[in-house]
Formats: sequence, structure tokens, C-alpha cells
Amino acid sequence: MSTPVRADEPERRRLTKAGRKTRERIVETAAELMFHRGAGGTSIPDIQAAAGVSASQIYHYFGDKQGLVLAVIDHQTDAKITRQRPLLDSLDSIEALREWCDIAGDRQDAMGCEGGCEIGSLASELADSDQSARAGLVAAFDRWEDPIRSGLARMQARGELSGSADVAALATALLAAIQGGMLLSQVRRSSTAYRQAVSAVIDHIESHLVR
Amino acid sequence: MSTPVRADEPERRRLTKAGRKTRERIVETAAELMFHRGAGGTSIPDIQAAAGVSASQIYHYFGDKQGLVLAVIDHQTDAKITRQRPLLDSLDSIEALREWCDIAGDRQDAMGCEGGCEIGSLASELADSDQSARAGLVAAFDRWEDPIRSGLARMQARGELSGSADVAALATALLAAIQGGMLLSQVRRSSTAYRQAVSAVIDHIESHLVR
Repeated sequence: MSTPVRADEPERRRLTKAGRKTRERIVETAAELMFHRGAGGTSIPDIQAAAGVSASQIYHYFGDKQGLVLAVIDHQTDAKITRQRPLLDSLDSIEALREWCDIAGDRQDAMGCEGGCEIGSLASELADSDQSARAGLVAAFDRWEDPIRSGLARMQARGELSGSADVAALATALLAAIQGGMLLSQVRRSSTAYRQAVSAVIDHIESHLVR
Repeated sequence: MSTPVRADEPERRRLTKAGRKTRERIVETAAELMFHRGAGGTSIPDIQAAAGVSASQIYHYFGDKQGLVLAVIDHQTDAKITRQRPLLDSLDSIEALREWCDIAGDRQDAMGCEGGCEIGSLASELADSDQSARAGLVAAFDRWEDPIRSGLARMQARGELSGSADVAALATALLAAIQGGMLLSQVRRSSTAYRQAVSAVIDHIESHLVR
């Protein structure tokens, strides 16, 4: 697995406070538009109008639309990880895994199962058509999978999870269940598919507990 | 679960042989374009040019673009189900489930893990923005999930799978693993995530076998 890094970190540090605020406003606006219309359905003029900035400001901060898409992927990943803390950093019990997945299911219910996953939707749209976005999405999924894997690894280190369990594979399986489950729930407008998908994988993880 | 039906079945039966061929050519062309560019990125003029038909022919057969998108969803579902037969109709052993999922993993490898799932990509793009497409996608996922559930139900009826196993939930979990696994594999350009995702769910199904 590649080390989870943010592609734009050094560049962001060079900005003034006002510059960072403008940049942030552009990214937030673009993220919101792309969440509803997709990256392909969101034009630079759309973002200009919604954020109240000029095209030259957008190009100044992001180089081109690809750069902006990459910043949106980072932004959505940051938002998701921040929202899921501190639980995301303590996924080292079956109960914590269930609670974490339940909260996401409740969040889907609260939204009428509309919207889907901010990162998954961009992944489905861009994985083949935009190589720089794909690299950003690899990092995004790694950053999201990493705390799952770490939690399982701590359970294993404490002797609670069998030494023969492949914690990296189990973490990937849970992330896949989350992604696939959210997609089915979005289509069916019911969180049942999501809950069944994550429950099957967590039950499977539970079967590796040392009794 | 709704009964898996094709929305356009009665209409198709009324067409002449030549009419069916033209309709089929339009749908196949639209499906190919939408697979690469998404439904939103594929215009009626694009389809006209690629299929060598007039706009009025497209509107004659499909009413509007929504009607065409719905026909593409049906077409992709038919193609997937036909391609996966006869294995799809005999998913009543752990070995058959593994073989079926392995074939899809090998197919992803053969395509360099590009493309993703024809139905999943449309689902991610259209579930929120096009209510008629969403209804078509519900039917598509039901048609795909149905043979998984049926296979598990036969195992249960034969007493091989525990009576307490929720075969509908397990079938949904496997479909979710397929969808989420394919998305992660598409992003990571490796079928490993897909294989780990489906393997976790099949291992979980296996834990319900009566020993």
C-alpha cells in the first residue's frame, strides 16, 4: 500500500492566510457542485459563479481543472476522516467497527439514502478518464482504509484476533462492503443493503477472534 | 424485493424484425459510448453519428434520452447475465460461488482493471439525478442478485446451509462486495481488492454450512 499523502501539501503551506481562505472557498464550492453534478458536469464558469471568484483565481490556485478535481478529492477525504474521528482512530474492537458502520448507515437514512459516497462517486466517474484523479483516489481510499487496518492490527497484536487473520485483506473487504453497500442503498433508497453488506464482513472478522 | 422485469418488454414485441435490429444497434452503440463517457457525457448527436441513424429514429424507438438510458441499463444487464450463464444459474455451492467470482476477477485482470462494472458505473452516475434510470437500476440489481439468492436458498433447502442463515441478506452482501470490490480494483488497477472483498463474504457464507 502506498503511504497516504496529500499531493498538494507543500503548495498549500506557501499561501497567505487570505489566499488559503479563497482557495478553501473555491474547493468547498467545487466539492459541493461536483457532489451533485459530477466532476464532468461541473464547469469552471459554474464554480466561478457559485464561489464568486474569477477564472484566473481558480487557475492561480489549481493550475487547471484536473488540479482542482484533485483538491476536491483531498477535501472530501479530509472531511470524511475528520467527521468520523475519534471513532475512526479506535476501530480496535468488533463493537467499535459495528458502531462506526451503524453511524454511517444512520447518516444514509437521514439523507433518504441520496447522495452516495462523496469519494466513491468521484472514483466511479474518474478512475478511467483522469489519471491524476485516479492517483488522488488511490491515496484517498488508502487514507480511509488505513485506520481500519490499524485497528485490526492492534487487536491482533493484543492477541484478540487470530495471528492467521490477514488484517490488510479484511480492512479492504470492509471498505469494499461500505462502498458497494452504499451504492446499492443509494439505488434502492434504503440503508438495508449497506447494513447487510458491512454486517457480513464484520461477522467474518468476528470469526477470527481468539475465543 | 421487486420482481425483476424489463420495463420495455411489451413495446419491443411490437417491432418488426428490421425495427428490432435498428433499435438493437442504437442501444449497443449508446451502451458502448455511455460505458466510456458516462450517460451525461454521451449526447444524442454522439449516438446518431456512431450508430449511423437519425435523431428521429432514436426518438421513435426510445421517446427521449431517459428512455434510451433505461434501454441501455436493460441491455447491459442482459449482456452481463447472458455472459455469466450457465454458472449464474448454478450458484448452489461454495465452489460455484468462488468459481463465478474468480472468473469476474480474471476478466478484470484481462482488462487491466479498467472500465469497472457497466451497471455499477451507471448506478453511481444516475441514482440521484434520473428517477426512471434509478427504477431500471433497482430492477437490474434485483435480476443480478436473484440467482445468488436462489442458489443459496437451494443449498438451504437441501440442508447444506443452516436454516438460520438469511440467504437474501447474504446475497445482497455478496453483490455489494462485488460492486465495492470492483470499484476499489478499478481505482487501484489490481483485482486484489475485488478478490479480497468477495472472498471475505464467501468465507462468511461458508461459515453457515451445516457440518
